[in-house]
Amino acid sequence: MAFRQWLVDRWREASRRAGFVEVDGPELEPLELYTEKSGPQIAEQLYWLQDKSGRKLALRPEFTPTLARMIAARQASLPEPIRWFNISRCFRYERAQKGRLREFFQWNVDLVGVEGEIADAECISVAIDGLRSVGLTPQDVQVRINDRRLLHDLVKTYLDVSEDAVPRVFALLDKRDKVPPEALSQMVADAGLEPQHRERLERLLTWQSLGEIEQVVSFRTPGEQAGLAALRRLFGFLDAYGIADWCKFDIGIVRGLAYYTGPVWEVHDLKGEFRAIFGGGRYDRLLAELGAKPMPACGFGCGDVILGLLLEERGLRPQAERPAEYFVASADGENWADVLRVVRLLRDRNLSTQFDLKGGNLSRQMKKAADAGARYVLIVGKDLAQAGRLTVRNMQSGVQREVSLEGLADLGK
Amino acid sequence: MAFRQWLVDRWREASRRAGFVEVDGPELEPLELYTEKSGPQIAEQLYWLQDKSGRKLALRPEFTPTLARMIAARQASLPEPIRWFNISRCFRYERAQKGRLREFFQWNVDLVGVEGEIADAECISVAIDGLRSVGLTPQDVQVRINDRRLLHDLVKTYLDVSEDAVPRVFALLDKRDKVPPEALSQMVADAGLEPQHRERLERLLTWQSLGEIEQVVSFRTPGEQAGLAALRRLFGFLDAYGIADWCKFDIGIVRGLAYYTGPVWEVHDLKGEFRAIFGGGRYDRLLAELGAKPMPACGFGCGDVILGLLLEERGLRPQAERPAEYFVASADGENWADVLRVVRLLRDRNLSTQFDLKGGNLSRQMKKAADAGARYVLIVGKDLAQAGRLTVRNMQSGVQREVSLEGLADLGK
Repeated sequence: MAFRQWLVDRWREASRRAGFVEVDGPELEPLELYTEKSGPQIAEQLYWLQDKSGRKLALRPEFTPTLARMIAARQASLPEPIRWFNISRCFRYERAQKGRLREFFQWNVDLVGVEGEIADAECISVAIDGLRSVGLTPQDVQVRINDRRLLHDLVKTYLDVSEDAVPRVFALLDKRDKVPPEALSQMVADAGLEPQHRERLERLLTWQSLGEIEQVVSFRTPGEQAGLAALRRLFGFLDAYGIADWCKFDIGIVRGLAYYTGPVWEVHDLKGEFRAIFGGGRYDRLLAELGAKPMPACGFGCGDVILGLLLEERGLRPQAERPAEYFVASADGENWADVLRVVRLLRDRNLSTQFDLKGGNLSRQMKKAADAGARYVLIVGKDLAQAGRLTVRNMQSGVQREVSLEGLADLGK
Repeated sequence: MAFRQWLVDRWREASRRAGFVEVDGPELEPLELYTEKSGPQIAEQLYWLQDKSGRKLALRPEFTPTLARMIAARQASLPEPIRWFNISRCFRYERAQKGRLREFFQWNVDLVGVEGEIADAECISVAIDGLRSVGLTPQDVQVRINDRRLLHDLVKTYLDVSEDAVPRVFALLDKRDKVPPEALSQMVADAGLEPQHRERLERLLTWQSLGEIEQVVSFRTPGEQAGLAALRRLFGFLDAYGIADWCKFDIGIVRGLAYYTGPVWEVHDLKGEFRAIFGGGRYDRLLAELGAKPMPACGFGCGDVILGLLLEERGLRPQAERPAEYFVASADGENWADVLRVVRLLRDRNLSTQFDLKGGNLSRQMKKAADAGARYVLIVGKDLAQAGRLTVRNMQSGVQREVSLEGLADLGK
């Protein structure tokens, strides 16, 4: 819980620094919100129930459909661009495994109403701010960026497969690091790929830069042109943001979800030990498909589970906070009214303070203070009532000194 | 959302000041966790579903059963006393009405392992800290305190009803402000109360102090003795905490839940416009009933809905934060790389900063800045690249002045 709260605070701060506003929706949504877009089989992966009036309600598996529903409901009155972020508990009913839990938290940042790649860059800059604020660097993680239009047309023209084979090739690319080789071979066969397709696919995946693509592929389809131009503009903006060293073009980035229409990106750990940490991209058609008027949009999602594993592995998970910085003890185990007076004084100054609720002698209280991880123990004796003075013990150094009640305000400075 | 987040932050801070540690559990719990304690009819008031393996899972209606389950699971290794708080989304499937929603947030503070009334006082002090931190005063709200043992024995001996009529009288007392008079008359009849009982019940409710009870009621049952002594000690502690002016004895406080065993309390608005804002008390038997080893415990819950209505009514709901304090504009609508450089600089200093993602001329950008509620607009022209200088406009006063890039750090101080 200490880790989750720390992480959520970092996410919230990174979003707010970029002027995004927090929103939330209900955790129970109509099941149709998911089945209409993804087909009835999606219900298998959701927790859902039928309410007393026969409505089917699902625990949200992600926030984007809720976002689209919320925008559609108030589209006329929302000032553009819409800069929203959300930190939500989500549920997926699937086999729990490393990095995928049935209940998890997700950070969503969405920017709606801007066509230009500056919006994609803005979202990526917020993601990088979030990564930086948890202690990660470009030596740990990388934003891998592609464009769906570019990839679509390369698959069609360079691989020379039919339009209806493209989604199967996309699925193949998306899964290639996630499934065992046997399963991948089966997928290749299912996708109807001939040996020459597979060879070309492998070659395509070796391309490292936009320049290389332009050299190798001489034809220029509309998708290639649009994708290449968009990526060039996007990398220009990322450079202006000063975050180009976090970012890299990667022809192999697909994003599984069908709704992306332009730039797509994922954040991966450089060692390749984990699945993608962030996934994002442009989804200019989704709002219209979910009942809103068409609006350009882009954004990303980041879960707490894989990021937590990565931070654990890198030794970046913070120590849990001490339950209390201060502990107030009674010198004689009797003068509880004086103890409470000091407790109140400290708490009124926003200092986290405990005392021994079970009373007892001083050595028992000192043990309690040590167990609670207190940094300072204030020992309250007869001097408090008589002279307004008490003893402060620094628990790390063991040094004790006398202070006045008024002097308490300067403690810890 | 801005209000919820503000409120949750206040709750979290008040809990931490008193050295409580945040915990959470899953939102889906086995349905039996609720039906075993409250009977199968409780399922009617819960959102629940049957999973693929036939287990019945309920969306939690409150946190206490989860707390008990968590404590039971690790009881041997948890250092005592256990000081936990939780802020959870809860669900109740009932008719939505003013002050009661189907999805809501609840602040729970629990102190487990301490028998003495100092623990009850500690919980009440955290509740009052929470009330104070949202701007409420003893002129707005009051903590009304009673003891279940005292009330139980007074109902039995002073009213002279049978043991099995006591719960019905409790229900009657608990509902007396919440149901219309006709319904209450019916409850009185159902409770089997004779005219002389009702007269005595009305007289009992007029008692204002512990002293008055001691004068009127000459007999001393064990429950009366224990309850009176506990309340005297509790009020002594509340006095030592310096919060006695927030607290009042109230013989009419029952708390509906059967599990309370000692002091019970509610926070009410003084004008009596709303239902109880907090409910709390001692529940020394609950942990054992939910499968843990017996442990004394007390705590409280506070929902966001009624508190929100009260703060609204008192004009204490905070203004929503500005989405961005700073807005960076391009003087000529061209030099976006310079704009992004300034944006980055401000965000790196943790200042919330926006710019116009759609570009356009300066007057259009100034309008966007005003719409976003920005406090300062930084206008970036050719001087930035040439001399490292830019213009700052205070949006409230309209005053503009020149600053250097280095001078940006002092903005807003």
